[in-house]
Amino acid sequence: MTTPSEPTAPEPTAGVFCGREHQLPVRIYYEDTDFTGIVYHANYLRYLERGRSDFFRAVGISHSELAQQDTGFAIIRMELDFKRAARIDDALVVRTLYERVEGVRLYVHQKITRGDEVLLDAHAVAVCISLSGRPRRPTPEMLAKLAPWLRPEGET
Amino acid sequence: MTTPSEPTAPEPTAGVFCGREHQLPVRIYYEDTDFTGIVYHANYLRYLERGRSDFFRAVGISHSELAQQDTGFAIIRMELDFKRAARIDDALVVRTLYERVEGVRLYVHQKITRGDEVLLDAHAVAVCISLSGRPRRPTPEMLAKLAPWLRPEGET
Amino acid sequence: MTTPSEPTAPEPTAGVFCGREHQLPVRIYYEDTDFTGIVYHANYLRYLERGRSDFFRAVGISHSELAQQDTGFAIIRMELDFKRAARIDDALVVRTLYERVEGVRLYVHQKITRGDEVLLDAHAVAVCISLSGRPRRPTPEMLAKLAPWLRPEGET
Amino acid sequence: MTTPSEPTAPEPTAGVFCGREHQLPVRIYYEDTDFTGIVYHANYLRYLERGRSDFFRAVGISHSELAQQDTGFAIIRMELDFKRAARIDDALVVRTLYERVEGVRLYVHQKITRGDEVLLDAHAVAVCISLSGRPRRPTPEMLAKLAPWLRPEGET
Repeated sequence: MTTPSEPTAPEPTAGVFCGREHQLPVRIYYEDTDFTGIVYHANYLRYLERGRSDFFRAVGISHSELAQQDTGFAIIRMELDFKRAARIDDALVVRTLYERVEGVRLYVHQKITRGDEVLLDAHAVAVCISLSGRPRRPTPEMLAKLAPWLRPEGET
Repeated sequence: MTTPSEPTAPEPTAGVFCGREHQLPVRIYYEDTDFTGIVYHANYLRYLERGRSDFFRAVGISHSELAQQDTGFAIIRMELDFKRAARIDDALVVRTLYERVEGVRLYVHQKITRGDEVLLDAHAVAVCISLSGRPRRPTPEMLAKLAPWLRPEGET
Repeated sequence: MTTPSEPTAPEPTAGVFCGREHQLPVRIYYEDTDFTGIVYHANYLRYLERGRSDFFRAVGISHSELAQQDTGFAIIRMELDFKRAARIDDALVVRTLYERVEGVRLYVHQKITRGDEVLLDAHAVAVCISLSGRPRRPTPEMLAKLAPWLRPEGET
Repeated sequence: MTTPSEPTAPEPTAGVFCGREHQLPVRIYYEDTDFTGIVYHANYLRYLERGRSDFFRAVGISHSELAQQDTGFAIIRMELDFKRAARIDDALVVRTLYERVEGVRLYVHQKITRGDEVLLDAHAVAVCISLSGRPRRPTPEMLAKLAPWLRPEGET
């Protein structure tokens, strides 16, 4: 319980789901831009990772707990199509779809949008690893939490 | 208007005010940490800047509009006391108090907290500049928007 | 001229050419790693960009001069295969081959290596743009400086 | 041994000493700048850390070895005076003086320069810690390596 003089501090959002799609709002700050006036291309990968992390957080999987179980993720492949540039003060949305799990591999499709515009279209493959870097299968618990959000059989 | 199948996408928060103090929630992601397991010290300056920027946004001052008026800010001095370390998944709050304006200088006091713990205590001095780097006085419009949030005369 | 008591300060390297391949050494610091102990995946894109920039610097094309001619570059596509992870203190080499220029597009093949190991294999497509973001053809001067380093006709 | 067709790849510099001052060259790339055209202020802290790390490397202390001995460093205080701004393509020098060691604390004075200009003057206090975050005294071996570079008694 909090008293009037000590109100609850605001919590960061972990995004929302719209169907199978997880949506995380991201603001563009000074740190994100470069001297050409637009967002530095490598920084979009930070927003993609925030989207994947908050998707996990939203379905009840936390990186800190995973780390205690000697489990993490590494990206092994990315295909990135940069379509439009973001600028200072922009409000973006990171849209994350976990497509499928095959052995130690997770296939993710992500978009970054601003209003109706798609700024970035990204396909990523992550592998589940031990913290010493060896591939390891996701635990049944993690798979159970992911299963409802994966692409249904037969859909493309 | 949005239809059920096309709901409004989530917006990033610009934080809230609690009295004169602006509070911005910040989540710690992979990108923020380093190999020692904690947040890399330079990254706290990114959160401080997000706090100052969203304070401005919340009172109706935007960096993109300022830039169109050939106005920006540069930090000229910082004093930073790092007290505790943040870790992956932490939910922090950036607390920003604009103290006073003296000519082209803005004095800011900021804290970063996690629950009841203060992680960082920071005093910063920013100067209002033209985009070619010359000091310039804040516009009367900007000063009018800041005035209600500055430290009252006689208070310390 | 410098005196014995005021020696010339060291200059950053812009890398070296080995045949058509530009090689830039990169050191891994605290800032590059994350809590899992390895380099954060998005940071490799920073090293790739350093490699492309220093390739340009080495052949006499500078970003600051280009900006004065209202010219910059934007990445529109990347394919990234992350094969092994780098760690704190590692000495890497960014290997950059400019493959070909087609209209406003530049095709680049890059690798990041540590000793004999390939850590990252990357194909990128950059477009030459004005600083307001419109595509524009590289100047004849820029093309003349790039031409000797492109893939010879008939080679793959 | 290397063959003519497979020359040794270039190594990143760890800087040079000029008297007690360690000098590390740093290049400004796209990643370092922001939309106002200058280097984002928080990024200077990355260069300062590179300077401190390469000072250590140059005197034979490595972060990876320290980590194996459950030892790292945390910054607990910084005073930063930002005097001038750096821009794309600039060649800077990070100048690092380790001043003194008191118990678990290391006092460092650093400057970042461009030619004759001082861009940043920084005083930092680091503490030696275990990787779980507890203060611990530097090992005699580390102290022996640092001792020749500290400020002589009586000097200020």
